[in-house]
Amino acid sequence: MISREHVETAWSRVRPHVRRTPALEAAAGMLGLPVPIALKLEALQVSGSFKGRGAFHKLLVSKVPPAGVVAASGGNHGAAVAYAARALGHRAEIFVPTISASTKVERLKSYGAIVHQVGAVYSEARAAAEDRAAETGALTVHAYEDPEVFAGAGSVALEFAAQARFDTLLVAVGGGGLIAGCAAAIGDRVKIVAVETEGTPTLHAARRAGRPVDIAVSGIAADALGASRIGVPNFEIAQRLVAHSILVTDEAVRMAQRRLWDELRVIAEPAGATCLAALLSGAYRPAPDEAVATLVCGANTDPASIA
Amino acid sequence: MISREHVETAWSRVRPHVRRTPALEAAAGMLGLPVPIALKLEALQVSGSFKGRGAFHKLLVSKVPPAGVVAASGGNHGAAVAYAARALGHRAEIFVPTISASTKVERLKSYGAIVHQVGAVYSEARAAAEDRAAETGALTVHAYEDPEVFAGAGSVALEFAAQARFDTLLVAVGGGGLIAGCAAAIGDRVKIVAVETEGTPTLHAARRAGRPVDIAVSGIAADALGASRIGVPNFEIAQRLVAHSILVTDEAVRMAQRRLWDELRVIAEPAGATCLAALLSGAYRPAPDEAVATLVCGANTDPASIA
Repeated sequence: MISREHVETAWSRVRPHVRRTPALEAAAGMLGLPVPIALKLEALQVSGSFKGRGAFHKLLVSKVPPAGVVAASGGNHGAAVAYAARALGHRAEIFVPTISASTKVERLKSYGAIVHQVGAVYSEARAAAEDRAAETGALTVHAYEDPEVFAGAGSVALEFAAQARFDTLLVAVGGGGLIAGCAAAIGDRVKIVAVETEGTPTLHAARRAGRPVDIAVSGIAADALGASRIGVPNFEIAQRLVAHSILVTDEAVRMAQRRLWDELRVIAEPAGATCLAALLSGAYRPAPDEAVATLVCGANTDPASIA
Repeated sequence: MISREHVETAWSRVRPHVRRTPALEAAAGMLGLPVPIALKLEALQVSGSFKGRGAFHKLLVSKVPPAGVVAASGGNHGAAVAYAARALGHRAEIFVPTISASTKVERLKSYGAIVHQVGAVYSEARAAAEDRAAETGALTVHAYEDPEVFAGAGSVALEFAAQARFDTLLVAVGGGGLIAGCAAAIGDRVKIVAVETEGTPTLHAARRAGRPVDIAVSGIAADALGASRIGVPNFEIAQRLVAHSILVTDEAVRMAQRRLWDELRVIAEPAGATCLAALLSGAYRPAPDEAVATLVCGANTDPASIA
């Protein structure tokens, strides 16, 4: 189980490579909430999401072979691995399903990655990535089920806690990398609340079952939160340090995306607006004096989708 | 002529009402520039542009009559006046031409303003606003040709200088309110460079003529930078404190908007990307050790226009 010290060490390693993203306080009333809220604009991170932190950390602590790194992801993780690999001088091969949007494929290529479009669904791309790594000896970088990856991700929580004061941090959950890192980093001092959409409830389902279970993923956040089950170490940390697990509707997420744009001129992808959706919809109701914060964790979306 | 002290006083007045917007350093290479650049994300300001600062300052130092305030602007200034008036408990009537986009009209209404759509072009809306103010006794808030407005706007430069170190600040020019405020605030210590699009060259034309002259406005930045002549006090300050006046093409502005989105996930309206366009296009070439900064001063645009 990783500790706060692990995350602090990870932060010191990745800090020269990633951006200190800004924190912003939205005053009471501003976002349609009766209370002020602190937001960390982690979508301004290198590669467009918090995933840059974990990818850099994994590559910095690993002996990367000449064959470079391999990852399976058409989304934020793939972009982060490609970005970090280029920055650190490694080859990167990224496997994505054939249905991936051409804009995402182009972004991966713009980061210098070799992109393989294989299989109709993510699991086929992932199998192809594993075959390729076995063949070339490349390092496989998993999106969330790797303590080095989520220790890097957790650095965002330490950085945020140094920028703003809050009692409660709402964190979106897909495979559980971000929340595991954040909980390990500050879960002893700050209440951590997990938020998922109804179509991507990996933690919610695992809590009901008492262990990670497969779920069917759907809905607007599926491209970023659509892991089919939560990672094992991630779930262990969440069981110990996450206070609540909350679900929100896709409609609430869309409303939150629009609110972030209308009031703050911030673009968030659905996963990046999920936590604000929990507040706007009343799925999470803070106590009167509870200082609440959340991460706008990614913006790898078409800005036209907000309007 | 306003001085740095005026701007400092204005800043102390508006500070409780506006947001301290984040500053960000884009590393060398990040935006396609060979040098690092400091960006202030002033589009995250209340009402979506730097205009919130000037509107609050004008209202805070004025005796606002029961009839409230009047402004003519379907753009950033109108939104800022409506926003500040609501926050300070005043009536606001905003006059816009009938061609104004319905999204802009809706935004003004959402800020509680009474919106009058009058006339085919801006000058007709402005004449109607003046008639209305004469009739009701309301306070007219001019967009830029008012030292109280641009002293408020200049607070952005003081705030930025406290966040980042830079030798040179690039500022977009329309009517000249922002650059007059910034030059008064820090022009004694920092080189101020004015940037305009080829379709909105109020300062450039005034410099050639030696005095403010009317120009025909056109192009993608016309909705925000499209004053037909630079303000008189604004020009006086610019003549004394602005080092260079530079023009960029609309195409360079579009490229800069796309670059801000692709690399930083920041949405800027054309006026807000004009200064970056000067750097990307080579219209302004910094010296090897010159630390350059610019304001991303507004994002009141349709995000779909970026993609």
